[in-house]
Amino acid sequence: MSNKIKNRKIVLAKRPVGKPKTENFRLEEDSVPVPKEGEVLCKTIYLSLDPYMRGRMNDSKSYTAPVKINEVMTGGTVGQVLESRNPIFQEGDIVYGYGGWQEFWSLKANDLRKIDSELAPITTATGVLGMPGVTAYTGLLNIGKPQTGETIVVSAASGAVGSVVGQIARIKGARAVGIAGSPEKCKFVKEELGFDGCVNHKGPDFPEALKNACPKGIDVYFENVSGKVFETVLPMLNDFARIPVCGLIALYNATELPPGPNLTPLLMRDILVKRLTFRGFIVWDFAAQEKEALTELAKWISEGKLHYHEDIIAGLENAPEAFMGLLEGKNFGKLVIQVSS
Amino acid sequence: MSNKIKNRKIVLAKRPVGKPKTENFRLEEDSVPVPKEGEVLCKTIYLSLDPYMRGRMNDSKSYTAPVKINEVMTGGTVGQVLESRNPIFQEGDIVYGYGGWQEFWSLKANDLRKIDSELAPITTATGVLGMPGVTAYTGLLNIGKPQTGETIVVSAASGAVGSVVGQIARIKGARAVGIAGSPEKCKFVKEELGFDGCVNHKGPDFPEALKNACPKGIDVYFENVSGKVFETVLPMLNDFARIPVCGLIALYNATELPPGPNLTPLLMRDILVKRLTFRGFIVWDFAAQEKEALTELAKWISEGKLHYHEDIIAGLENAPEAFMGLLEGKNFGKLVIQVSS
Repeated sequence: MSNKIKNRKIVLAKRPVGKPKTENFRLEEDSVPVPKEGEVLCKTIYLSLDPYMRGRMNDSKSYTAPVKINEVMTGGTVGQVLESRNPIFQEGDIVYGYGGWQEFWSLKANDLRKIDSELAPITTATGVLGMPGVTAYTGLLNIGKPQTGETIVVSAASGAVGSVVGQIARIKGARAVGIAGSPEKCKFVKEELGFDGCVNHKGPDFPEALKNACPKGIDVYFENVSGKVFETVLPMLNDFARIPVCGLIALYNATELPPGPNLTPLLMRDILVKRLTFRGFIVWDFAAQEKEALTELAKWISEGKLHYHEDIIAGLENAPEAFMGLLEGKNFGKLVIQVSS
Repeated sequence: MSNKIKNRKIVLAKRPVGKPKTENFRLEEDSVPVPKEGEVLCKTIYLSLDPYMRGRMNDSKSYTAPVKINEVMTGGTVGQVLESRNPIFQEGDIVYGYGGWQEFWSLKANDLRKIDSELAPITTATGVLGMPGVTAYTGLLNIGKPQTGETIVVSAASGAVGSVVGQIARIKGARAVGIAGSPEKCKFVKEELGFDGCVNHKGPDFPEALKNACPKGIDVYFENVSGKVFETVLPMLNDFARIPVCGLIALYNATELPPGPNLTPLLMRDILVKRLTFRGFIVWDFAAQEKEALTELAKWISEGKLHYHEDIIAGLENAPEAFMGLLEGKNFGKLVIQVSS
């Protein structure tokens, strides 16, 4: 590749305290990577932005190592193969991998998945037919286990994971009630995604509205948010309710614990008295089910049972601002950066 | 039965606020009940005192209805049949049932279980071969799922449930570490029950001592206590740890929530990042396994693999004080009131 072509990338400039700001990111130019034997060089078409990235910006122990200072921000990407040094992939193939916030990347063939562009738009590999969709599928079915007639509540219901959770719950014969952050999002969740109800957690009557939307209580709460939303849901949980803990976006930017009283005893008491099950998970815990999940999700899309909405913003340079907005709920549906055409 | 014989019983005089006091109980005399068709009249030999009874003294929704004011306190009892109006039971049989804090009671045959006095001392029907033993067995094996080489920590380790939990964990090939409330209890847990370690939560170096006792972290925490003990355990839990929530004795007498900060976000974050499973349960949730549990427990006792300790106090009139002591950890082993000989 010509030396004149540079790889634009966004690196972690410094670790954020609280909300990430522009200063935490830096746009750099670097040389385009040269693929090693067995690797595949790709050009980014779409970059997926997801809440988990906030955790990687901290220097704290989590389920994976943090991004290092001056290192490219981590992220799932849809790319086109420019050069393949592995027989599995050909130039021109569309693939998905963790390329990061940059224009070019080279990964081992094992770390890539070929995308069938006939099946659905290739952006879906970052959303409904990607990590968020598989997260929704595996977390809901393995931990939530929705039964016919039960009430499933999901927070961040218009988001990449939440939107799929509620629709799968309905496919499985349960009632789906969403929680989202604006009247417009709630309208979308009900009218476009077909949820049985959706409640705006910023509304003044949120607890009352949620209670009205769940007259038989809540059997599964799919947790994406935590904070005040969780505190409102907790007393409405039924005996033997299941709570897949998938995300805690309301906590990610917190710099200190909330003031007292300490509500942990209420949670522990409810776990005991109502015989609740809380279980945290990440999508890799169910890696063996990825293929099954993608097959089912694609089938439901083709049958018109599963809808999705993508919020696509052009320009790698806009990724930091879009990501900061994601943590505030400013996106509408799966947030994707179009890096090239 | 002669009209001269009276039934002494202890009723709930008024609901406690915080720690129960003498004034919350009242010793009364009543007539001995007359068994109806199908019922069995029994004389109490032993009354079981258990932490769950504190919950029944409150007028709040829980998994069963509260004891009413002026109603006899609820409780499991070992009794001898005085008169049977059901062919399953004969005069002189030793049985277990929820007779309550009183000398005589009449229950339907369905609500009684015959005790084999050849198998083990009949007091064990209130402990290791009764509700606490079955609680330990079903909670540990269904939720805790201890694996060979894993570290299992149990609080209230010298108590009726905790003592059995640790010993079963060892039988299943795991390491058992107890948490108890005095050096004497810890010595007993290690030397008599054979736990791999036991730590005094009232000691000044409790967190450090627990860490030293669990060099590979904690894979199962069997929760009987909550409060500060739980806060100390939480950061030591390993990825994919399981937490059967069986009791919360440190909270039962609380009249208000602890001061801030609100630690719930720490708990939720650990659930997510470490992929923890918290599940509350009560023994009835696994009613189908009661027979299996009792058979296994009896076998382990006969093989010398399972030891138990009972704290027997004579006199029904002493039940309130003994119960108040139980909530403070003053008992040593399974607490039983000997009501008659």
